[in-house]
Amino acid sequence: MNDRLSKILSSMTKQRHDAVLISSIPNIIYLTGFSHFSQHEREAYLLITKNENYILTDGRYSEAVKSIIKNFKLIEISSKLSFEKALKVLASKHRIRRVGFDHHNITVAEHKKLSSCFIDLNHFSMNTLRSIKDADEILAIEKACKLGDKTFKYILNKIKLGVTEKELAFEIEFFIRKHGADISFPPIVAFGANSAIPHHKPSDKRLGKSDKIVLLDFGVKLNNYCSDMTRTVSFGKATHEQKRMYQTVLEAQKIAIEFLSSTFHSLPSHEKQIKASQVDKVARNHIIRKGFPTIPHSLGHGIGLEVHESPRLSPKSKDILKHGMVFTIEPGIYIPDFGGVRIEDVIVLEKSGPRLLTNSPKEIFELV
Amino acid sequence: MNDRLSKILSSMTKQRHDAVLISSIPNIIYLTGFSHFSQHEREAYLLITKNENYILTDGRYSEAVKSIIKNFKLIEISSKLSFEKALKVLASKHRIRRVGFDHHNITVAEHKKLSSCFIDLNHFSMNTLRSIKDADEILAIEKACKLGDKTFKYILNKIKLGVTEKELAFEIEFFIRKHGADISFPPIVAFGANSAIPHHKPSDKRLGKSDKIVLLDFGVKLNNYCSDMTRTVSFGKATHEQKRMYQTVLEAQKIAIEFLSSTFHSLPSHEKQIKASQVDKVARNHIIRKGFPTIPHSLGHGIGLEVHESPRLSPKSKDILKHGMVFTIEPGIYIPDFGGVRIEDVIVLEKSGPRLLTNSPKEIFELV
Repeated sequence: MNDRLSKILSSMTKQRHDAVLISSIPNIIYLTGFSHFSQHEREAYLLITKNENYILTDGRYSEAVKSIIKNFKLIEISSKLSFEKALKVLASKHRIRRVGFDHHNITVAEHKKLSSCFIDLNHFSMNTLRSIKDADEILAIEKACKLGDKTFKYILNKIKLGVTEKELAFEIEFFIRKHGADISFPPIVAFGANSAIPHHKPSDKRLGKSDKIVLLDFGVKLNNYCSDMTRTVSFGKATHEQKRMYQTVLEAQKIAIEFLSSTFHSLPSHEKQIKASQVDKVARNHIIRKGFPTIPHSLGHGIGLEVHESPRLSPKSKDILKHGMVFTIEPGIYIPDFGGVRIEDVIVLEKSGPRLLTNSPKEIFELV
Repeated sequence: MNDRLSKILSSMTKQRHDAVLISSIPNIIYLTGFSHFSQHEREAYLLITKNENYILTDGRYSEAVKSIIKNFKLIEISSKLSFEKALKVLASKHRIRRVGFDHHNITVAEHKKLSSCFIDLNHFSMNTLRSIKDADEILAIEKACKLGDKTFKYILNKIKLGVTEKELAFEIEFFIRKHGADISFPPIVAFGANSAIPHHKPSDKRLGKSDKIVLLDFGVKLNNYCSDMTRTVSFGKATHEQKRMYQTVLEAQKIAIEFLSSTFHSLPSHEKQIKASQVDKVARNHIIRKGFPTIPHSLGHGIGLEVHESPRLSPKSKDILKHGMVFTIEPGIYIPDFGGVRIEDVIVLEKSGPRLLTNSPKEIFELV
């Protein structure tokens, strides 16, 4: 945590901010380890100044904050001391004028109030900092991925004629929750033609003999860290066209991973980095070359405290992949009214190259 | 829905807006009935103009939107047509200059983009409109509250020596989900001294003989409408101090409800309204008069599509309670390192006075 704080302090100084206001829940967890605040209401801010770190929250959290967060001074918000008042006091005490804040997380109404506390407010992002994971974070994601693999193994046995998409989605969630974790997003379960919709919402559709395709996309959230994986299995014997789609997606994923691996291998150790858009391109091109429509989404996304975070692996991404980054690689082919295939794994980029954190089998499954 | 739209149109005209941009998920559900959009990412906007209503969303939702939403024209967002571009086209088509938007829901980054579409952006709130519920909404909340009562009855049997807070919280959620509903917020289960933390997060703490207090605060979300209730039960025979706390909280709640009732009874039918802060005051004062610390939160909050919405019942609230409003009354006493008591019910304010929508028993439970 202290290492993370000193990185914030250094980029704060570089950007000539007198202080940084941290508002998003993942950013608060990242800097304090404290994960009790609601995602739905503004219950806390962190204010990082050059000399002192503050956490502003109300009496409901005081006890828990004091016992868990050691390197932040608690300012208790109450009916007598609003966020606004407290921030004004701190602004004057530390002579804070120029402040960094996350413009994707602060509403217009909040900004108006903050403007009365600080003279100069500018966007400050922790995305790049958070995109490089430390060893503890990688271990946490790996544990979440392992529970994801376990969930996949469990759910394979539940894919039966007549089961509904909703029932399978519930089984996935129930299994994850029973293991002391949470879901990182509502599971996607899609049968037959529904699998052609990349973000299908599980319905009451029952699995029929003619459906052929079962697409499962789900994630675990364990100790605040997320996993994310997709597998597509064949219900009954796969048709020729289905196999061709599956092989092409699998090849696209392999090509992307091998491209990462060989590039990292060939680069000198102090220059190990690669454009995210290039990785997207090699996978995308393979699918197009095989005569299929291009992937209608990006090839992958960073994952950590959030299920979608930096870096983005897409054609227009400006992100650079470096070691310590954890992200998904998830090519897909979707044919309307027929079905889709997506294969998604989580990868950590190490100095020696990419390493898979999800390890569920990927040979084509034919459930009968 | 059309009645709601015409109310929006009339306040739009009063505020001299050319159009209103609706962004929050509850507001979108309120006006369209469509509840598929994610709470976590911006996937849709409504634009209400004087002549036409639009819904802007991407291809994933087109089919569902077309089949469910009848009085909004669909504009499909894609990689070629961003929200920004589409709004610019509509602004020019309908000569829209002055636009209402919800400054609590739009981020600074989004506002910057909207500013390039519309010349004059001003806050527009649906809170007051939504705080008065129609008959369908009251029925929906009542159904959610009934499932809440059923959940409480069920969970009482699960409170056993050795059970953990997390296990009980999971049982609550599982019961609610099995009944086709969702939770309206993560359940609070607090044993012993943990109950002194108003928003305690369920832990692995096991229920022991010395814990004495079990506090349960949970809510149901059924057909998009929320319930919310809290009960505090005694594990084993209640001590004298515990009973005194419990009775005081129960009295405070009764006093607040009776105050609402007698005030409404005494007022002429066209003037039936009361300051929310006054109701907060009578309950709060009773607790202080009995020598306990003041309630460290507000006495209650409106409930509907959101678990917390207008009106607010707090010392500083400017809200006026009127018939058709639905809100909680939830006094509490919290003694650090000892424990807490909170009793919370949902009330609908009718012309004849308040009526309870949650009906679980409130005599002191002594589970043995």
